[in-house]
Amino acid sequence: MTYVEMSQDELKEEIKSLKEIYKKYQDMELSLDMSRGKPCREQLDLSMGMMDTLNSEADLSCEDGTDCRNYGVLSGIHEAKVLIGDMMENNPDNIIIYGNSSLNVMYDTISRAMTHGIMGNTPWCKLDKVKFLCPAPGYDRHFGITQYFGIEMITVPMTPQGPDMDMVEKLVSEDESIKGIWCVPKYSNPQGYSYSDETVRRFARLKPAAKDFRIFWDNAYGIHHLYDDHQDYLIEILAECKRAGNPDLVYKFASTSKITFPGSGIAALATSLNNLEDIENQLKHQTIGHDKVNQLRHVRFFGDIHGMVEHMRKQADVIRPKFEAVEEIFEKNLAGLGVGEWTKPRGGYFISFDSLDGCAKAIVDKAKKAGVKMTPAGATYPYGKDPLDSNIRVAPTYPSIDDLKTAAELFTVCVRLVSAEKIYREKFN
Amino acid sequence: MTYVEMSQDELKEEIKSLKEIYKKYQDMELSLDMSRGKPCREQLDLSMGMMDTLNSEADLSCEDGTDCRNYGVLSGIHEAKVLIGDMMENNPDNIIIYGNSSLNVMYDTISRAMTHGIMGNTPWCKLDKVKFLCPAPGYDRHFGITQYFGIEMITVPMTPQGPDMDMVEKLVSEDESIKGIWCVPKYSNPQGYSYSDETVRRFARLKPAAKDFRIFWDNAYGIHHLYDDHQDYLIEILAECKRAGNPDLVYKFASTSKITFPGSGIAALATSLNNLEDIENQLKHQTIGHDKVNQLRHVRFFGDIHGMVEHMRKQADVIRPKFEAVEEIFEKNLAGLGVGEWTKPRGGYFISFDSLDGCAKAIVDKAKKAGVKMTPAGATYPYGKDPLDSNIRVAPTYPSIDDLKTAAELFTVCVRLVSAEKIYREKFN
Repeated sequence: MTYVEMSQDELKEEIKSLKEIYKKYQDMELSLDMSRGKPCREQLDLSMGMMDTLNSEADLSCEDGTDCRNYGVLSGIHEAKVLIGDMMENNPDNIIIYGNSSLNVMYDTISRAMTHGIMGNTPWCKLDKVKFLCPAPGYDRHFGITQYFGIEMITVPMTPQGPDMDMVEKLVSEDESIKGIWCVPKYSNPQGYSYSDETVRRFARLKPAAKDFRIFWDNAYGIHHLYDDHQDYLIEILAECKRAGNPDLVYKFASTSKITFPGSGIAALATSLNNLEDIENQLKHQTIGHDKVNQLRHVRFFGDIHGMVEHMRKQADVIRPKFEAVEEIFEKNLAGLGVGEWTKPRGGYFISFDSLDGCAKAIVDKAKKAGVKMTPAGATYPYGKDPLDSNIRVAPTYPSIDDLKTAAELFTVCVRLVSAEKIYREKFN
Repeated sequence: MTYVEMSQDELKEEIKSLKEIYKKYQDMELSLDMSRGKPCREQLDLSMGMMDTLNSEADLSCEDGTDCRNYGVLSGIHEAKVLIGDMMENNPDNIIIYGNSSLNVMYDTISRAMTHGIMGNTPWCKLDKVKFLCPAPGYDRHFGITQYFGIEMITVPMTPQGPDMDMVEKLVSEDESIKGIWCVPKYSNPQGYSYSDETVRRFARLKPAAKDFRIFWDNAYGIHHLYDDHQDYLIEILAECKRAGNPDLVYKFASTSKITFPGSGIAALATSLNNLEDIENQLKHQTIGHDKVNQLRHVRFFGDIHGMVEHMRKQADVIRPKFEAVEEIFEKNLAGLGVGEWTKPRGGYFISFDSLDGCAKAIVDKAKKAGVKMTPAGATYPYGKDPLDSNIRVAPTYPSIDDLKTAAELFTVCVRLVSAEKIYREKFN
């Protein structure tokens, strides 16, 4: 029986019982964190071998003889471009290897567009208005960057096939002030959706009014599968753009942050040769080069893309049980009550939970008061404002499986209690 | 006898003889590089032990328990702040540890000032005019950044005591559009001058018309002494600014680029707590954090500042003979001819050579045609334009001592030939 179908007495009894359970969790003085997409210790341990790949006896020259210990090589060493090219499904020649963070690469890309413009177009800071499309729910740090630069954000609803493409096509073709769109195309943050073939095809065929419109394609979870035999496949966007006659339409980002060590990995951008030339002409003022020793370390550790894929299978073995545990607990405690829905992704770092309208903040708040930290409600929307107050991002990777189960159980108690109280209030008060 | 004192026949004979020598160098088909301040292989080898400090058995947690392998810690791990604080002569609390390049930190600092302004002041990109003072000769990549952002550069003459402070004081107090000044205060690039006590005192007491004026104090060579017993000492600028009641006047930059591996070291900024707060509020949109594993690697390798100082003594032992070889050859081949002057720095990475007016480009060109690459003439001035065409930066560290001697000998031949021809032209044609 769903909560809305319950009689007043039944619902009152349910609330009373839930409050008792909640109280017990409070008494446990928990301190658990399901808020951020961080790898857990066991995942990090899988990369410890990387610390041995370069030692004092190693030759730190790369294949072309460059001494990686010294200055130079603005766009990254070739063998790193090959490895990351295989990871990103792009030609090494289309790649710049950066420093430790793809978020920083995205920030820089927008920052340069603000001060210098894209390919000779007016710098965005000289325009009255710059807008970005923001498929939502989405990644809070994407929205943080655009908000920081005073870029107006327009929410585009997400569907299981990707952003609402009717809306995207209409908006970008009509409004020259729309300069970009944030995309996490595979195992999206937070829903774990992968864009359908049709969605990618339509992206590659966009006809933006603005010449300097770019798709910011953050393929953060390209090889982050949970199931070896049930993977999502995505049409490669650079190739599709080229085929569609729109070669310069996309900036594609990726990193090894959730492959080796977050913050100590390598990040990359893949894009057309025209875009690369434009970027490198700016980048040369910005730095003499990124950390080539760390690039070499990654190349020597993985060997090739097969090594990386095998490594990701081990990572999946660590985190798959966590995703399944959360889904099981949600199913056991919430199915059939009509109090919310959640996604069951095949990869990535998140499960997305949609509560009844107007309940997300209260649920996150209740979980917090019992010692379980969730991503703040609203964070998955531009300006931190979820219009329906219903989306909650669940990040299962970081806690231990036991902690995670406790946190997930408590979370479902909070969902049920907040939902029951809302329904009671609306139906019987 | 100087060249100007020579008779026509004497000078003609000298030119003839120099041309023959020059031809011999050309026949050697040299390919030598004295253009960039790069450490040589032997210097890099000194840091190979750093590759062993972290291995797969190491605990990659820092003192406060943070796992350096995971996300977080925006401003750097504490023990790195302590080490770099000792290196920079600043309190660890005044420091942000960045990524692999201080040039990039300077770029970012100016880029943020352009788009967001400093401490609530108008973003520079919204102003009609932004100007920087550029003590020259100076560092070409500094000038490259300001030029890239369309900032007007005003040349300030350098003296052995530092920039012409009468001019600096007058300009910054009168012109609100002057927002900054580039300084390499110790073992300056390219002259190797260290600012006098009076110069630093006057910097700390500047009364800029612009509230958002900042001194960009690039202390790139703070511990890069050539002589253990003849070091330059510099008044610490943050402390002096604080004493002078101007605590927020300065951004100070440094890195380990020429201590461990260029491009794979760690960079830092030291400034007042007010400035730090302003910067961190912006930085948090830019990145989740820098490479903590590499920070930890540096800390464990050096242990403390004494370890770093001992390391720099070994570096000095490698490069001191190179500086001395160049100075010896200059002395032997050029002294008393009246064809140029050069500096004899006690540290840093460069010797600065001043030719007769109008000869620098021709000398560099002649050296290039005999296979010796110098920093382009003019590079040490804003917009790459040396008004007297006389300054040439000599970078002795990278080549082997034998190559360096050959290059320095050839360089002096070029200086003499170009100078003799100029004098001949002016006196006897």
